[in-house]
Amino acid sequence: MVQIKEDISVKQQAVLAKKGAKQLSLLTTEQKNKALLTIADVLEEHTDDILKANEKDLENGKEKGFDDALMDRLALSVERVKDFADGLRQVSKLDDPTGDILTEWTLENGLNVKQVRVPLGVIGMIYEARPNVTVDATGLALKSGNAIVLKGGSSAIHSNKAIVEVMHKALDKTEIPKEAVQFIASTNREATQQLFTMKEHIDVLIPRGGASLIQAVVNNATVPVLETGVGNCHLYIDEHADVEKAISILINAKTDRPAVCNAAETVLVHEKWLEQNSDRLIQAFKDFNIEVFGDERTLATIPGAKEAKEADWAEEYLRLAIAMKVVSNVDEAIEHIEVYGTKHSEAVITEDENVVKKFMALVDAAALYHNASTRFTDGGALGFGAEIGISTQKLHARGPMGLPALTTIKYVMSGNGQVR
Amino acid sequence: MVQIKEDISVKQQAVLAKKGAKQLSLLTTEQKNKALLTIADVLEEHTDDILKANEKDLENGKEKGFDDALMDRLALSVERVKDFADGLRQVSKLDDPTGDILTEWTLENGLNVKQVRVPLGVIGMIYEARPNVTVDATGLALKSGNAIVLKGGSSAIHSNKAIVEVMHKALDKTEIPKEAVQFIASTNREATQQLFTMKEHIDVLIPRGGASLIQAVVNNATVPVLETGVGNCHLYIDEHADVEKAISILINAKTDRPAVCNAAETVLVHEKWLEQNSDRLIQAFKDFNIEVFGDERTLATIPGAKEAKEADWAEEYLRLAIAMKVVSNVDEAIEHIEVYGTKHSEAVITEDENVVKKFMALVDAAALYHNASTRFTDGGALGFGAEIGISTQKLHARGPMGLPALTTIKYVMSGNGQVR
Repeated sequence: MVQIKEDISVKQQAVLAKKGAKQLSLLTTEQKNKALLTIADVLEEHTDDILKANEKDLENGKEKGFDDALMDRLALSVERVKDFADGLRQVSKLDDPTGDILTEWTLENGLNVKQVRVPLGVIGMIYEARPNVTVDATGLALKSGNAIVLKGGSSAIHSNKAIVEVMHKALDKTEIPKEAVQFIASTNREATQQLFTMKEHIDVLIPRGGASLIQAVVNNATVPVLETGVGNCHLYIDEHADVEKAISILINAKTDRPAVCNAAETVLVHEKWLEQNSDRLIQAFKDFNIEVFGDERTLATIPGAKEAKEADWAEEYLRLAIAMKVVSNVDEAIEHIEVYGTKHSEAVITEDENVVKKFMALVDAAALYHNASTRFTDGGALGFGAEIGISTQKLHARGPMGLPALTTIKYVMSGNGQVR
Repeated sequence: MVQIKEDISVKQQAVLAKKGAKQLSLLTTEQKNKALLTIADVLEEHTDDILKANEKDLENGKEKGFDDALMDRLALSVERVKDFADGLRQVSKLDDPTGDILTEWTLENGLNVKQVRVPLGVIGMIYEARPNVTVDATGLALKSGNAIVLKGGSSAIHSNKAIVEVMHKALDKTEIPKEAVQFIASTNREATQQLFTMKEHIDVLIPRGGASLIQAVVNNATVPVLETGVGNCHLYIDEHADVEKAISILINAKTDRPAVCNAAETVLVHEKWLEQNSDRLIQAFKDFNIEVFGDERTLATIPGAKEAKEADWAEEYLRLAIAMKVVSNVDEAIEHIEVYGTKHSEAVITEDENVVKKFMALVDAAALYHNASTRFTDGGALGFGAEIGISTQKLHARGPMGLPALTTIKYVMSGNGQVR
């Protein structure tokens, strides 16, 4: 196996990545696609090596008493490695955004101006337990012509290392230089922090993981950050909400995959709708075993509901629990979302077009839904093919980020001596 | 006159701005345009008040011994106030980017997806001496539906205050709430620093001014930053450069407006071209009084050239001085730019298409020129109508930033009960 050197400094790795990025930026789409398919094949061929390394992480996790959810995210299998490979094959089929001419015009003096899409350069990826990010992020970075510096969580260190070793082995057979994929083997915090300020060598940092990881990056990085993923998503059930739609969307948004960022965490219910439909709502919570934390009026209506503390309104439960507040109108709902929302995904259930208009105009979030589940905020579901994360910031990219989010533009000007 | 309260905290101002932004985001293009024209008229009507306030800043500047260039940037006149007003009239004629549907598609399940362009929200503008920024930035912010928090330099505090007071007076006659334009009257550093971390209330910070101001913002802000303006621009004169084009572009890029960020600061000259054309180059430097700081081979060729120190290669002279290095090929030029460039504007002068290709592919900057002056990196020159600054970063916006750079997108989804 190719060995990842542990004695190389983070800075040296970033410099190598920048060098790799230059070479990579000159490759054709075909060369990049061929490389992705090679990595996919070689990953599958080395499934045993990867699973062996994964065993170590699982043993470690058991010793440290990780909970079932964490162990599940960590655990690899023949199928999961095949999924990694199939993911890369999928990415190889996506359109290559780089090289596209977005606009072109000629000034009166004859100077031709082209806006050309180009790779960002070097992407710094800081993430937690899931080893699949190692492969997914690498595939998206390489396809869009970017080098990547990977800094995974220590709980998956053996798995990640093995995966990168296999990917390096594969890259040796391709036109993509191995330097374009750097893995930071050190598990100490300093290594991560060095990435934060390496503006000369790293073009963007993408943190993926829990709120505290993301906050640490946002608060400490001078390298520009693409903030992803924290979703305290709301569902507002209006006075004029259709009861069938309301209940089915609520149940889907809360229970389909409670642990993901586009799951609903708070339901805001119009008092008049509640009067009419409290039986249906009570039954739904009961049928799906959903724990409810509510305000005073909720407690008076939903049997078994617990009192919501201030913290509940801001909480991402990521499990079968929901906060519920009874409101008197859409304005109150919008105001609540303004205070507690994370600008991810917010939904309104109503048949009243004026309420829809107001909600869509005044709620500030990446994705706003009318009569649909917040679960659609996802690159796959929206047809982007794959995503590097879901941006909850407003600059550069918002919502699910596909390949174009990993690019920037260059103005390319052609003249014959033009001066001002 | 409306008085700007000095006892209101920066946070309170940011909260008011956010509130103003909400109301502003609901206005039509016509309402915004009408407001801009009203501000323009009221500014002209109050020219005397503005000039009286400007006198105080000029007296202050004289006492503090400001140099001529700074005094010139600070000084207002009837004509300059008219220019402010005309600038706003110009902005009123630009296309309003907000509300545009960028793409729209429908998923197989019938869920309609729209990508809609919306204002960023609240823009924090941190700038130095020029009072024109107070008006220009406000005009661009309001036209794109954004509130603005202005923090100008202390040297122009009286002028800026008077301008904002007049703008507030004007806004009283329009549909745009006065809250949408906040001016931080305090001149202490803490007021600026408070803006750096106000993520809840401010959506983006735009610093405009010298390198140290910009670095302070980039290094300390957790609010996302649009980095602008530092330009260490290079001109590479290749072996196969046409001498007429090379000389006229060099002179234009260096001397047309030496103090601006798109002026050339270093010329990299191919040794063979220099052998043939040193007489012409020497004459040009002499005719235009350009001070030259050069490497060894430059010193051997250009009479009167001074030795370039390491710092010269990174220097933005912003005056009639240039650094010059003799190189053996385009690769050496590209490498030099990689080390010392600021990703602003870089030019290659050559008739060799292969050299052009390499330069365009490998140089990493917002704007790359073939046989034209770097002076065209400017919103006005490129036909954007107006610019809020020139971005030298890669995320969100690159190069001259017009109105679209002050917007983001929202995904607006319409369904009839879709769930996953």
